[in-house]
Amino acid sequence: MRKEKLLMTPGPTMLPPEVLSVMGRQIIHHRTEDFTSTLDGLQESLRPVFGTDGPILVFASSGTGGMEAAIANLFSRGEAVLNVSVGAFGERMGRIAEAFGLEVIDLSHEYGEAADVGRAKAALEGDAAGRIKGVLLTHNETSTGVTNDVRAFAALTEGTARLLVVDAISALGGLEMRMGEWGVDCVFAGSQKSLMAPPGLSFTALSEKAWEATRRSDLPKFYWDYGKYRKGITGELAENPPYTPAITLMMAQRAALDLMRAEGLANVYARHARLAKAVRAGAKALGFAVFPDERVSSDIITALTPPEGVKPTELIKAMNDGYDVMVAGGQGKLKGKILRIGHCGYSEADDVLRAISALERASWGVGHRFGPGAGVAAAQREIMGGSA
Amino acid sequence: MRKEKLLMTPGPTMLPPEVLSVMGRQIIHHRTEDFTSTLDGLQESLRPVFGTDGPILVFASSGTGGMEAAIANLFSRGEAVLNVSVGAFGERMGRIAEAFGLEVIDLSHEYGEAADVGRAKAALEGDAAGRIKGVLLTHNETSTGVTNDVRAFAALTEGTARLLVVDAISALGGLEMRMGEWGVDCVFAGSQKSLMAPPGLSFTALSEKAWEATRRSDLPKFYWDYGKYRKGITGELAENPPYTPAITLMMAQRAALDLMRAEGLANVYARHARLAKAVRAGAKALGFAVFPDERVSSDIITALTPPEGVKPTELIKAMNDGYDVMVAGGQGKLKGKILRIGHCGYSEADDVLRAISALERASWGVGHRFGPGAGVAAAQREIMGGSA
Repeated sequence: MRKEKLLMTPGPTMLPPEVLSVMGRQIIHHRTEDFTSTLDGLQESLRPVFGTDGPILVFASSGTGGMEAAIANLFSRGEAVLNVSVGAFGERMGRIAEAFGLEVIDLSHEYGEAADVGRAKAALEGDAAGRIKGVLLTHNETSTGVTNDVRAFAALTEGTARLLVVDAISALGGLEMRMGEWGVDCVFAGSQKSLMAPPGLSFTALSEKAWEATRRSDLPKFYWDYGKYRKGITGELAENPPYTPAITLMMAQRAALDLMRAEGLANVYARHARLAKAVRAGAKALGFAVFPDERVSSDIITALTPPEGVKPTELIKAMNDGYDVMVAGGQGKLKGKILRIGHCGYSEADDVLRAISALERASWGVGHRFGPGAGVAAAQREIMGGSA
Repeated sequence: MRKEKLLMTPGPTMLPPEVLSVMGRQIIHHRTEDFTSTLDGLQESLRPVFGTDGPILVFASSGTGGMEAAIANLFSRGEAVLNVSVGAFGERMGRIAEAFGLEVIDLSHEYGEAADVGRAKAALEGDAAGRIKGVLLTHNETSTGVTNDVRAFAALTEGTARLLVVDAISALGGLEMRMGEWGVDCVFAGSQKSLMAPPGLSFTALSEKAWEATRRSDLPKFYWDYGKYRKGITGELAENPPYTPAITLMMAQRAALDLMRAEGLANVYARHARLAKAVRAGAKALGFAVFPDERVSSDIITALTPPEGVKPTELIKAMNDGYDVMVAGGQGKLKGKILRIGHCGYSEADDVLRAISALERASWGVGHRFGPGAGVAAAQREIMGGSA
């Protein structure tokens, strides 16, 4: 018998039944009270997740669209930005900034490292003329399984004219974000990672400083124009949102946020931390190493280096074909070198046990040897609070 | 008892049960054979609808995103385009072109008129220096219920260096498009109109001449970059599509296209024409006038001027609140002047009868007088082939 495939990839993530049941409903029109209540509910539920009181802009787009929107709205042609990149998604943000004619000052790190606040501080201090208008940072770098210390970076830009722009595509909803309190200027996220909805939506929130920057920006945009979306929300524009929204996905996202609210945001974050510990413990017990330094290893995705002689691609195929658990390999430079287990969104202890069990059986299948059961036992000990 | 609300708006349109059942399924990952087969199926099913052998680009976006992508990929800063506008959506395309720094030569028409090929021909002939690089045209102008003669416009640009860019957001799948045969260079469409899927996807196809233009374009883009999507489809890029796609919506769209294929495209178009005739006949029998000249009145949406003394807003409210049929009013300049009945996508004779019945009862309710049953009888005669 084959059970439903379990996705433990960095996204899309599995959808809760409450979300699926919304997806299967007949469409409603977007100029109706029903839809307005969905929009209002989304605003209300997303604000605490971003940690803001401001409007949340909802785009029909992939996360990369949210990234492009941030660049096109916050900066002007020829302005310089400091791109603090720790992996493939940080590099992507730099490429978008270049495509829009910004001067990109590269502050890239070795894959597996977290962003170095000291290096960024030095770069900003070296820019006495104030040419650098913004700092681009990835909250959770999905390609390497590293979480950056957003709060420490916000301390560099808060109270200055510079903007801190944070890609929280995978992080938001799984890792704590308090953009207002920390002083982050722009945060964007995707629906299909920690937020437990299908792919196709991006969400963006801005500080007042960022809103001011949007008024100066001379980069071309129309679909991404933040101002129009904000006016829709505040009622200055009759049509909210300005273009036909991805209605079903928004209703699904609202259902997912209702589940998060019922669980309690603090509990959601604690769950992610607990699952990450269990994954690391289980994998280490089987001879895998956590790819980044464990202190910066992500709570929503774990990147692992396999034991000597074990090929990640074979392991991934064996887990998928033999045990119906789908995990991901490395991207770009890390292709064939690591495997990545996602545990964000609709993920619980049982899923981690199933994944570690599959990892254990697949590893055994490709000839790696260890004490059978060592992985699941170690994961289970963490699940039980590290106390057993 | 209240029956499920019937949307007879210009989109989103009702979804067939076959589409809804796909929407309610658990998510699959986008780097799998299952998803690749969805992508391939979409390509194969959409090509005949566009009338092209080339790749179909699929964006996670509203239709307006597809519009922006066309401008950003096909032209360069400072180039001139002739914007042949017959309503609100034509005007939007002009505004996007302006936002991207193009020189927009306005060829706008009175609301309710179809695009005048003669005027466009004269404008192009007057441009001996060849400054005009493209002609922008709306296939079906949803705001006025007018269909433009795309083929006649293609004859103006085919064999020249100029591109014909066609907004088929609402039209594609409801009105015939043979872009290859006619010589259209760029066509984009939305998922939520004639194509019977939920909102959140746009589709684009290009001629070889348009692909060449994309290589010269200097406008900034990353998310919209056609080249990357094409390389995904042809296999030159490992990742197809390049960013996390709106997986569920794409699977839903494929299911909708399967239904269209089973019906046969010629039958689909004939059905739309038949329903439009029935709507016009029913409304005219009640004293409504077709807003545009009937010869250019759209087969997928009918714009109506009400009889003297009948306010469209009251009628729309009465149809919605009393009879659960949702139709739309006018936009912009036409606000409060017309009502618009959509009959594209998942629409059949019974829906038209229900809509005309609601129109009839609502009209009676606001004090308009006619022979009761006149509207549905006239619609029914057209449904029966105009022969009864």
